[in-house]
Amino acid sequence: MSFSGILRPGHVQIRVLDMQAALRHYVDVLGLLRVQRGDDGRVYLKAWDEHDHHSVILREADTSGMDFTGFKVRDEADLDRLADGIRAFGLDVEEAHDERPATGRRLVFTCPTGHRIELYAHKAQIGNGLGNVNPEVKPDNLKGMRPTRFDHCLLYGDDIDANARLFTEVLGFDLSERVVASDGKTVIATFFSCSNKPHDIAFIRCPDKDRFHHASFNLESWHDIGNAADVIARHNVAMDIGPTRHGITRGYTIYFFDPSGNRNEVFAGGYQYYPDHPVIEWTEDALGKAIFYYDRQINERFLTVTT
Amino acid sequence: MSFSGILRPGHVQIRVLDMQAALRHYVDVLGLLRVQRGDDGRVYLKAWDEHDHHSVILREADTSGMDFTGFKVRDEADLDRLADGIRAFGLDVEEAHDERPATGRRLVFTCPTGHRIELYAHKAQIGNGLGNVNPEVKPDNLKGMRPTRFDHCLLYGDDIDANARLFTEVLGFDLSERVVASDGKTVIATFFSCSNKPHDIAFIRCPDKDRFHHASFNLESWHDIGNAADVIARHNVAMDIGPTRHGITRGYTIYFFDPSGNRNEVFAGGYQYYPDHPVIEWTEDALGKAIFYYDRQINERFLTVTT
Amino acid sequence: MSFSGILRPGHVQIRVLDMQAALRHYVDVLGLLRVQRGDDGRVYLKAWDEHDHHSVILREADTSGMDFTGFKVRDEADLDRLADGIRAFGLDVEEAHDERPATGRRLVFTCPTGHRIELYAHKAQIGNGLGNVNPEVKPDNLKGMRPTRFDHCLLYGDDIDANARLFTEVLGFDLSERVVASDGKTVIATFFSCSNKPHDIAFIRCPDKDRFHHASFNLESWHDIGNAADVIARHNVAMDIGPTRHGITRGYTIYFFDPSGNRNEVFAGGYQYYPDHPVIEWTEDALGKAIFYYDRQINERFLTVTT
Amino acid sequence: MSFSGILRPGHVQIRVLDMQAALRHYVDVLGLLRVQRGDDGRVYLKAWDEHDHHSVILREADTSGMDFTGFKVRDEADLDRLADGIRAFGLDVEEAHDERPATGRRLVFTCPTGHRIELYAHKAQIGNGLGNVNPEVKPDNLKGMRPTRFDHCLLYGDDIDANARLFTEVLGFDLSERVVASDGKTVIATFFSCSNKPHDIAFIRCPDKDRFHHASFNLESWHDIGNAADVIARHNVAMDIGPTRHGITRGYTIYFFDPSGNRNEVFAGGYQYYPDHPVIEWTEDALGKAIFYYDRQINERFLTVTT
Repeated sequence: MSFSGILRPGHVQIRVLDMQAALRHYVDVLGLLRVQRGDDGRVYLKAWDEHDHHSVILREADTSGMDFTGFKVRDEADLDRLADGIRAFGLDVEEAHDERPATGRRLVFTCPTGHRIELYAHKAQIGNGLGNVNPEVKPDNLKGMRPTRFDHCLLYGDDIDANARLFTEVLGFDLSERVVASDGKTVIATFFSCSNKPHDIAFIRCPDKDRFHHASFNLESWHDIGNAADVIARHNVAMDIGPTRHGITRGYTIYFFDPSGNRNEVFAGGYQYYPDHPVIEWTEDALGKAIFYYDRQINERFLTVTT
Repeated sequence: MSFSGILRPGHVQIRVLDMQAALRHYVDVLGLLRVQRGDDGRVYLKAWDEHDHHSVILREADTSGMDFTGFKVRDEADLDRLADGIRAFGLDVEEAHDERPATGRRLVFTCPTGHRIELYAHKAQIGNGLGNVNPEVKPDNLKGMRPTRFDHCLLYGDDIDANARLFTEVLGFDLSERVVASDGKTVIATFFSCSNKPHDIAFIRCPDKDRFHHASFNLESWHDIGNAADVIARHNVAMDIGPTRHGITRGYTIYFFDPSGNRNEVFAGGYQYYPDHPVIEWTEDALGKAIFYYDRQINERFLTVTT
Repeated sequence: MSFSGILRPGHVQIRVLDMQAALRHYVDVLGLLRVQRGDDGRVYLKAWDEHDHHSVILREADTSGMDFTGFKVRDEADLDRLADGIRAFGLDVEEAHDERPATGRRLVFTCPTGHRIELYAHKAQIGNGLGNVNPEVKPDNLKGMRPTRFDHCLLYGDDIDANARLFTEVLGFDLSERVVASDGKTVIATFFSCSNKPHDIAFIRCPDKDRFHHASFNLESWHDIGNAADVIARHNVAMDIGPTRHGITRGYTIYFFDPSGNRNEVFAGGYQYYPDHPVIEWTEDALGKAIFYYDRQINERFLTVTT
Repeated sequence: MSFSGILRPGHVQIRVLDMQAALRHYVDVLGLLRVQRGDDGRVYLKAWDEHDHHSVILREADTSGMDFTGFKVRDEADLDRLADGIRAFGLDVEEAHDERPATGRRLVFTCPTGHRIELYAHKAQIGNGLGNVNPEVKPDNLKGMRPTRFDHCLLYGDDIDANARLFTEVLGFDLSERVVASDGKTVIATFFSCSNKPHDIAFIRCPDKDRFHHASFNLESWHDIGNAADVIARHNVAMDIGPTRHGITRGYTIYFFDPSGNRNEVFAGGYQYYPDHPVIEWTEDALGKAIFYYDRQINERFLTVTT
């Protein structure tokens, strides 16, 4: 409950095995807008209601998974303060020097669970297509699932306890919900908010470092979740589970896979979070209800398949 | 875009001419939960998904209108800092000494448009009825329109320019949208956010001080807006306008009146706001579309009837 | 409550002042599919979930209005029986000989309110685009308001009492609802069903013959009504009223105008009707609630503007 | 496509192991209204928007399952005609003489799959609680899942081919959809409509006679399906599958179990059916998509658990 200057999840770079198949998925089926192709072949995408230049970067590679996720920070001074804090926490922070269109200074560090995190204060604003004077409420003829925004990542890793200290004590996030193992001590899952959303990033404990569970995209309502399910079925997208609802966050959800096996989520709803809310605690025996409120059991795939 | 510690609109005190009629309206029709009746006859209500003790206070009086609205602040230190800032801005700030159940230290000031504003850092948390361990997603058998939270107030007053300076420079709000008159200079309406909501308070220019336009309550979706309209019709509540949609905020809305003539709103949706978003500007000739996107014209009542 | 063989409203021919403007409206905004242009310039359209060749025929003319509406009948024998009945009722029935693509034998008569009605048993089925083997649930990338079907016409005319006898005693419709004037005798409005829909055609009393109030198109839900309102506003379509709900039929509705001034409706919901249901009766003093349940008053335009 | 006088599924009698548990389920959770308890302990229930006295009869017994389902017929003459036809088809038809409140003459027969079917032309109309003059659109404070109507039964049995002949040639139903085995000949499942609904009764082939798969209740929309899922989870009702969508009928659905193990469905949407529509055919390899469009696979439980 201390403001660090971090505003929101700003982007995620996802490795895909075949760029053309990936674009069919992320553009035609998920419904992101293609913004730009970089000289190195990376493709930059955004959801329609984002003002910034991109929120998803696709990189063709031999393995699937997430390269990094980035958070937008209020200003350059916040960046410096955050860098100091992260270093004081004991992690290296470097300035990224690889080319990235439309993006200002980027600070990069690897958090205790092995995930690469970027912080940046500037990204070119290309607008949401409606203009800033007398705008309409939405663009015409959106495609696919019509996501409004990149919402968050859920990541699997080993030392989620150290991650929790980093995110709450240094990065200014608040712990909104957590799952505690049946031993009453081990924390299995942690959900962090830097906003009024019930989560902006989440970590689940697993033996390995740097595992990617899913990137999530916001839809407007349960109705749009239904439309997304229609789109998934019609396009023979590999479904994981849904439409269903989370006990954690109360969000409506569907999980599915991109052609490279990376999990995507579309998410709608969820309560309005404030940092003075009590932390919601889930016990391991209620894990099914916590994750999938309607089925009250989790499929093994959800717990074990990551990229 | 500077964090002041203000977390959210926390409460509004509304004057009603007949308490019994008001309770039938706010409890049975709107669907707030009755928490407590004070020794002085004031009744304290909350929406189901609020954790704090109350968000609406009804006071029986000879005239309708709003006594004050209050904002929850992160901690006592923020309160002191805010008090210093408001005084430096040139306004008196007093500590309230009247009795108020469940509420800590309250600082009170009158903003340039003549509205009384409270700031407080503590209010007893009585929970949202679901508990904090393995909670369900909603309570059973909610009544009426099933609002989740008190959302915001919209207030009419004279010096909204000074208000804008106070709210952005001292209180840490961001201007999300505004309406500019056909002279290209005079600002007619201002919408301020202290969160990821498109507005947490709004002011519209009028010749008088301290006018109350409406208090708004959050619903989950356009579907719940439809249900609210059913409830309004079934109970012969005085309808103002709706169901419709705002151009400003993009929220779905219905306006209606309590038995004392105070205007209420139920509101759902609206975009996710971030403080680095461009300010959205509306021109006076597009005022109809700005306020009521579907009709693209405003009823005279909306502009002139306040309490 | 006697089965005559009439299955459903099958088509409506609408006069438009400018075909290009009309097509922009009916195809790009309303979202009908263009099927064919006849040699005489008439354009044939259908809604996506109709199997038959067309349900809307646009004819360019100097005046707007409806030329006729047609009902699909089970088979040719029903056609003959219906012709006998209509003649026995005292009306002329002719076989139409003008060219009409994809349509079989058509019997034409003018009902007592002066409207031209067609009956036919055959129209080429071109399918709903999903195929009849292992179909998907909906096509991709529907446009505009995404109507599923032409639903019904509401017509204004003088002798709605004779119409009521014709539709119930000869054509096999059932009276589902009606509005009775304050004299307790004069019937102002009548709603007839030949299906499980609350109405398949309706007549409202007025001094003139052969007036066209609106053609209505079915949407799936209140959510799609909201989307339709967005589309109407975004395309600056002339709005009549809505989104709102009818007391009569309980359907969700928006009324708006095509560029020639013909009124359209999009309609969703409404109860499931069966012919043994009691007739629902509305009194004239409740006319507002009957027509527009939320506002509980009718705009003058709704009562007086027809084409 | 020949009208026999059958109007709709009118009731189903379900055997339950414990009446008190059953009533908690059917009244408090599903949300049916309790109408009457018979002298023999049977309890009569209805959904709110049905006008007739009851649509569900619960009978306490040692085994779960369905005793019979009944169809409302237009008039007594239709009853006699139908009895003649059924006898001509080779089945016995008897007049029921056990006591049944509010119900007129009942003809009973056992169809080729071993299910007991009732036909009746009279049942006392007690109304939908809204009255027939200037009615509101829905009652206040409906409970649970708020079903509007009993919708249909799906039954498992052996000779579904003979059933198909009976239902189409004698009872006047139309075959809307069917599933054909991979041999290209054996029909696995048949869906019949006597209305504009995509099905009013359905049969699936299995080795045994007289198996009960589920009774289905109509909800208004996908949104209400979501609410039903919340109710199911909150009350720890045994979930079968959902929320999901059928390829067959396109309806939105959840399956769950009453405390005796009888399967219930809540169903919303589905296309508007007309008897001149082509029969939709599903191949066995698409059975998953046919039954559960989103998962595109069926759980074993769905195919094998009946009562």
